[in-house]
Amino acid sequence: MRYELIKTCKQTGARLGRVYTPHGFFDTPAFMPVGTQASVKGMSPDELREIGAQIILSNTYHLYMRPGEDIIRNGGGLHGFMSWSGPILTDSGGFQVFSLGNLRDIKEEGVAFKSHIDGSSHFITPEKAIEIQNDLGADIIMAFDECIPYPCEYDYAKRSLERTSRWAKRCKKAHGRPKEQALFGIIQGGVFNDLRKQSAKELMEIDFPGYALGGLSVGEPAEKMYSVLESTVPLMPGNKPRYLMGVGSPDYLIEGSIRGIDMFDCVFPTRIGRNGTVLTSGGRVIVRDAKSARSYESMDPECGCYACKNFTKAYIRHLLKANELLGLRLTTWHNLYFLLDLMKKIRQAIIDDELATFRQKFFDSFGYKNN
Amino acid sequence: MRYELIKTCKQTGARLGRVYTPHGFFDTPAFMPVGTQASVKGMSPDELREIGAQIILSNTYHLYMRPGEDIIRNGGGLHGFMSWSGPILTDSGGFQVFSLGNLRDIKEEGVAFKSHIDGSSHFITPEKAIEIQNDLGADIIMAFDECIPYPCEYDYAKRSLERTSRWAKRCKKAHGRPKEQALFGIIQGGVFNDLRKQSAKELMEIDFPGYALGGLSVGEPAEKMYSVLESTVPLMPGNKPRYLMGVGSPDYLIEGSIRGIDMFDCVFPTRIGRNGTVLTSGGRVIVRDAKSARSYESMDPECGCYACKNFTKAYIRHLLKANELLGLRLTTWHNLYFLLDLMKKIRQAIIDDELATFRQKFFDSFGYKNN
Repeated sequence: MRYELIKTCKQTGARLGRVYTPHGFFDTPAFMPVGTQASVKGMSPDELREIGAQIILSNTYHLYMRPGEDIIRNGGGLHGFMSWSGPILTDSGGFQVFSLGNLRDIKEEGVAFKSHIDGSSHFITPEKAIEIQNDLGADIIMAFDECIPYPCEYDYAKRSLERTSRWAKRCKKAHGRPKEQALFGIIQGGVFNDLRKQSAKELMEIDFPGYALGGLSVGEPAEKMYSVLESTVPLMPGNKPRYLMGVGSPDYLIEGSIRGIDMFDCVFPTRIGRNGTVLTSGGRVIVRDAKSARSYESMDPECGCYACKNFTKAYIRHLLKANELLGLRLTTWHNLYFLLDLMKKIRQAIIDDELATFRQKFFDSFGYKNN
Repeated sequence: MRYELIKTCKQTGARLGRVYTPHGFFDTPAFMPVGTQASVKGMSPDELREIGAQIILSNTYHLYMRPGEDIIRNGGGLHGFMSWSGPILTDSGGFQVFSLGNLRDIKEEGVAFKSHIDGSSHFITPEKAIEIQNDLGADIIMAFDECIPYPCEYDYAKRSLERTSRWAKRCKKAHGRPKEQALFGIIQGGVFNDLRKQSAKELMEIDFPGYALGGLSVGEPAEKMYSVLESTVPLMPGNKPRYLMGVGSPDYLIEGSIRGIDMFDCVFPTRIGRNGTVLTSGGRVIVRDAKSARSYESMDPECGCYACKNFTKAYIRHLLKANELLGLRLTTWHNLYFLLDLMKKIRQAIIDDELATFRQKFFDSFGYKNN
């Protein structure tokens, strides 16, 4: 894997770049659609390519549980199994395991937990998380980290990030395919800037080809996240990609890019789409609402996606109310198109040295307050 | 609407034809995918065109209930509303209303019934069924008939078909758009060949641009259905299309074509697809089965559909087990492709005067007994 820094926005400092992987490149800042179970819900690989997705993310925890990493390895790895020939990133499963709450128990060796599917007992160590990801075969894989909740006591956040550093070292050591798969370290430390600094320093000493910021967008106020980005991103190496995990709302994508982030992922656009809400040039629209019943306009008159070019809100609302699969497909399609198109506009604004201007215009139209 | 008889198979008597409608033509014998709620479940209009669908069917009862025919009329009729520019056929709602069992009450004037969605009370007359279909705007619409169950007493079947004839007359009289929409009469009479003959005669006296056979494939043995076809189809005019309603399994499509049927429809391929069963050149395959878990072959190695060209049984089985929408899409896609491809092969076999030979080969490979 190689990161190429192409240009920095003079107005904001945001970075335009390109990441080369064994399965092709992706342009940054990039948004990665999430295919939790080896499928971006409702979308075919061809459709993802058509709307401009260059890299997708899949979840190690879910795939380990079902169908199991050996079935995927024998099916040609994730690329072959799901018929996606472009770059893929897998998370480490850490976030999902820590989200299990009472179903898991954290030890220095690893984490014991029960399956959300059948209640069976499992024990994931950093080594095991890497072994699974080696089997899945993604181009970028993630170190096994502890993702703390918000709010979290300072002392626990400190002890946790130090364990995450020790686990990161074990992950690097266990990595069996370093030439084919780039292993990223994950900076933790909650909303405490000095802890983030400590975490970044410890991980950089281990030396990874890329770094992520984990444990953000987990309920903290936006200002706290921006403060962490502003204090931590400058500590991250300029010649490697920077990935803000689990972030995907339009404002966070713009604000994150401005603060030097190169990669994002989130289930947000696909999830709200399935619930009948779409992102448009004029803000969020609840297509499922009664208001849409006789609205014979597209969801977003300014959008060029397949759903907006061919169907009205009245039809899509009918599909959603009638539980028709096509309704979920069309709202998902549109929302992903909207975010991938937003990333293209962000990259163009970096080229034009006017990302701050773009932000102002976007927020005015979308109805956000500029903060 | 105009029916063109192109050729008759010398080996079987099956008819090759073409039906011209205000929204283009379709080749016969034709299978019509069912879009019950103005959407063929999981498929986009573009995909339907891609797999060779030339005409689709939608259900008046469901659309009357939700979203309501006025919303569809104001959205440009069904063609505009669902963005399908080709021919459409709507049924009359009769079959669905009569399927409601205890929720409906049949009178000479019409049928009183309660909605399956909210329990609200409705009264559908032949005139109302036509008025709704005029609003929906399909190219071919159907008379409001009584669809009797199997088995059924001779006396009831006779009284019922006579009422269906009286209703057919009222439907023709009520039809407000005869130049744009072809109204088909529906021959009833259960499995009693003399009653079918009576029904056909009465309907032909009213004179419709096309005729359907209703109330078949409702549980009767295949032989009884074939007997009705053999005795009734010869009574139907040769210069008008003949439509066998609710029939869509591969054997029935072949046997129906051989007996002179031009049009078919059924939810069978889409429904079994969603349940994880697919039709293949070697017979039915339950992709959802554990057997498929490590099967890295396509569902049908002889199939050229998108699903078979790109994905393995192992992947599709995983998607189905994990409740991923893409799994339902791929099995549906394949099954519709399989049946539409079968119709192409039937039409080619008619051109080649060897439909009986084709039937034998198909049944040998598919695992049916030739009857």
